[in-house]
Amino acid sequence: MAPSYWATVNQLSNHQPTAGPPVRRSAHAMPDSVSEFNAFRSRMNDIILNAGNLTINRFFALDHRCYEPGALGTKTKEMLGLVSSLVLRCDDCVTYHVLRCHEEGTTREEFLEIFSVGLVVGGSIVIPHLRRAMARLEELDLAP
Amino acid sequence: MAPSYWATVNQLSNHQPTAGPPVRRSAHAMPDSVSEFNAFRSRMNDIILNAGNLTINRFFALDHRCYEPGALGTKTKEMLGLVSSLVLRCDDCVTYHVLRCHEEGTTREEFLEIFSVGLVVGGSIVIPHLRRAMARLEELDLAP
Amino acid sequence: MAPSYWATVNQLSNHQPTAGPPVRRSAHAMPDSVSEFNAFRSRMNDIILNAGNLTINRFFALDHRCYEPGALGTKTKEMLGLVSSLVLRCDDCVTYHVLRCHEEGTTREEFLEIFSVGLVVGGSIVIPHLRRAMARLEELDLAP
Amino acid sequence: MAPSYWATVNQLSNHQPTAGPPVRRSAHAMPDSVSEFNAFRSRMNDIILNAGNLTINRFFALDHRCYEPGALGTKTKEMLGLVSSLVLRCDDCVTYHVLRCHEEGTTREEFLEIFSVGLVVGGSIVIPHLRRAMARLEELDLAP
Amino acid sequence: MAPSYWATVNQLSNHQPTAGPPVRRSAHAMPDSVSEFNAFRSRMNDIILNAGNLTINRFFALDHRCYEPGALGTKTKEMLGLVSSLVLRCDDCVTYHVLRCHEEGTTREEFLEIFSVGLVVGGSIVIPHLRRAMARLEELDLAP
Amino acid sequence: MAPSYWATVNQLSNHQPTAGPPVRRSAHAMPDSVSEFNAFRSRMNDIILNAGNLTINRFFALDHRCYEPGALGTKTKEMLGLVSSLVLRCDDCVTYHVLRCHEEGTTREEFLEIFSVGLVVGGSIVIPHLRRAMARLEELDLAP
Repeated sequence: MAPSYWATVNQLSNHQPTAGPPVRRSAHAMPDSVSEFNAFRSRMNDIILNAGNLTINRFFALDHRCYEPGALGTKTKEMLGLVSSLVLRCDDCVTYHVLRCHEEGTTREEFLEIFSVGLVVGGSIVIPHLRRAMARLEELDLAP
Repeated sequence: MAPSYWATVNQLSNHQPTAGPPVRRSAHAMPDSVSEFNAFRSRMNDIILNAGNLTINRFFALDHRCYEPGALGTKTKEMLGLVSSLVLRCDDCVTYHVLRCHEEGTTREEFLEIFSVGLVVGGSIVIPHLRRAMARLEELDLAP
Repeated sequence: MAPSYWATVNQLSNHQPTAGPPVRRSAHAMPDSVSEFNAFRSRMNDIILNAGNLTINRFFALDHRCYEPGALGTKTKEMLGLVSSLVLRCDDCVTYHVLRCHEEGTTREEFLEIFSVGLVVGGSIVIPHLRRAMARLEELDLAP
Repeated sequence: MAPSYWATVNQLSNHQPTAGPPVRRSAHAMPDSVSEFNAFRSRMNDIILNAGNLTINRFFALDHRCYEPGALGTKTKEMLGLVSSLVLRCDDCVTYHVLRCHEEGTTREEFLEIFSVGLVVGGSIVIPHLRRAMARLEELDLAP
Repeated sequence: MAPSYWATVNQLSNHQPTAGPPVRRSAHAMPDSVSEFNAFRSRMNDIILNAGNLTINRFFALDHRCYEPGALGTKTKEMLGLVSSLVLRCDDCVTYHVLRCHEEGTTREEFLEIFSVGLVVGGSIVIPHLRRAMARLEELDLAP
Repeated sequence: MAPSYWATVNQLSNHQPTAGPPVRRSAHAMPDSVSEFNAFRSRMNDIILNAGNLTINRFFALDHRCYEPGALGTKTKEMLGLVSSLVLRCDDCVTYHVLRCHEEGTTREEFLEIFSVGLVVGGSIVIPHLRRAMARLEELDLAP
């Protein structure tokens, strides 16, 4: 199989960046799987949070806080995050919220209805992102 | 002084457009109240639907169908429509879904949490729309 | 009552701004009619072009040049401009290209088909702009 | 004639909303002047911040903090905020950052160069917002 | 040649997903060629359409119907779809409409003029998508 | 290492496209490194500029001119370009302006503050692009 992106990263594994853990180079390739997405996300978040910019760090904390249960439950809030990501056409954000909605027990039929609202609101321009969202969902349903 | 939007409309009230009910001219002024929004929306929808373009008419039907209850209830779907409108920064769409969510029994605390997700996802660029959404909500809460 | 936009402008009509013709203040009110749109557009373009920024002036020249006939005729190019403005949801740009398409002989049925493509590509978020585009079209068809 | 926005507001001036100061209704009309913009902005911010949603309140605090001087000075950061608002085509955000940049001593020539970057990056779709930004600048330069 | 994406897919080819044909995993990698784009598009459309959400299925039908000849011919409508995709910066949508315009007989000079409108309307932010559109066009012109 | 994208290109290296230098096929794969980004950018720019569309060529010239020093220095203008690219969520544009800012002597702390403005203005939807911008920065800091 193609060594790809992470092979390059491994060749760099003895290097220490200016702050935090070893750096993944070649960051523009979109991740092929949920686990690659999670690995890159986790690495880069560490680097960003270790960089010491207080505004950025507080934003990340706020972004986490925002989905905690309140008047609305976390499942509903994650569905709000998913449809927002879909109409704004951000593949990585869609992947993240598909994962979180799945963890919160969103059913296949509920996913399809979230997708249908995003499609009607956002138009055919959303379709390529819907295809990738659907493939992520298939990937999750196949996982052991 | 320049005659305003509705003054102009009143002067035109005997006119019949090419299709459907009397036309509201000068449609670019943003509506000052929910009732003006509803009046303009209803008028123009009639004109558009009477114009006879099958693709447009089917889209409008689909847009209506999309929020009917299924695996998710109408209230949840309207909340999805509201947060999508907020992150896409469409004031008229926000007004419409604020109205619909209000009719479906969304509480003040639930509205604020929907707004908070839209704000964190969409950033400070959403704030002017949040102000107008909040003003719409105040207007609805004051209505008899 | 609060003096409106154009009342304020009239009160300022003896004033000379730093560059070019008299300034329209209070420019945030959306224009109520095509003639108001054209007046504000023409005034502000004069002020901008007289301000002496070469990059901006060249951009305006390029924007004009772009719709001149070539392999595609001006009518087709204006239709491309209109659908782009619709999916990007810019009311003033839609007004301008509705005017230009109308001058180039675009028929009501052709306008509706341009709108239908914009609606399907851009989704229900386009509908408020479609309503205003349709009202502009009604206004043009009523003009003597 | 149709009562305007602020006339309606004045009629409501004895009313107390659910939280905070008197509410401006009819919030969808775009403000005609910088002072109207500031009045509406200030009122609605009070209502929003008094509503008690911690995520929203923290976001507003972060939005304020973000422009404080650090490695970059406030003037530069406000210029970054202005060009971002211009390419995202948010008139109210543009108004706010034009005001702030003006307070920080940005010159007419510097404003024009910020506008030129926003215009080239964002394209002709930015032009209507550039016209309104320029009118705001004229308004500020005329103020006593 | 790089085994890549589709090698992974082939390893999965004995698997049956919950609904419809075999699933392509790893759906986030952008396709390297028009034929890979078409294969992924076709597979995922099958999965989506077999999932049984009526709103989504009707939207797909409407999206197809929208480009059928009417007052405007299919070639003109596909050009409208292409410029919309370009200003909305959706690479997959651009690929699809470049293919369809090519099938409808759009010439190299016509493509360049569509691109020029999209570039002027959408600004320099469109350039990376223009590069990829141009590479697609080169690929099609080289095909036997 | 993965043969990938450019291996395919090399196999095509004896071919001459309709205009200009040898064509890179498979243009949709996002570049894995800054040097790949630069190579693809340079190749496609040659093809585009050799295609002979005067509007496109003038736009490219204007895009270059826009960042030349004037009332604001080039470093400040490149920072404006970077934050615009970030809030518009264009990875290739972000890569380009990160490179240019780096050449103009932007420090790590200044980059983080530009990112913080883009993050607060554009919201959490910007985070995936911020991760990739940060990875580009790490890549540049590691270069000999």
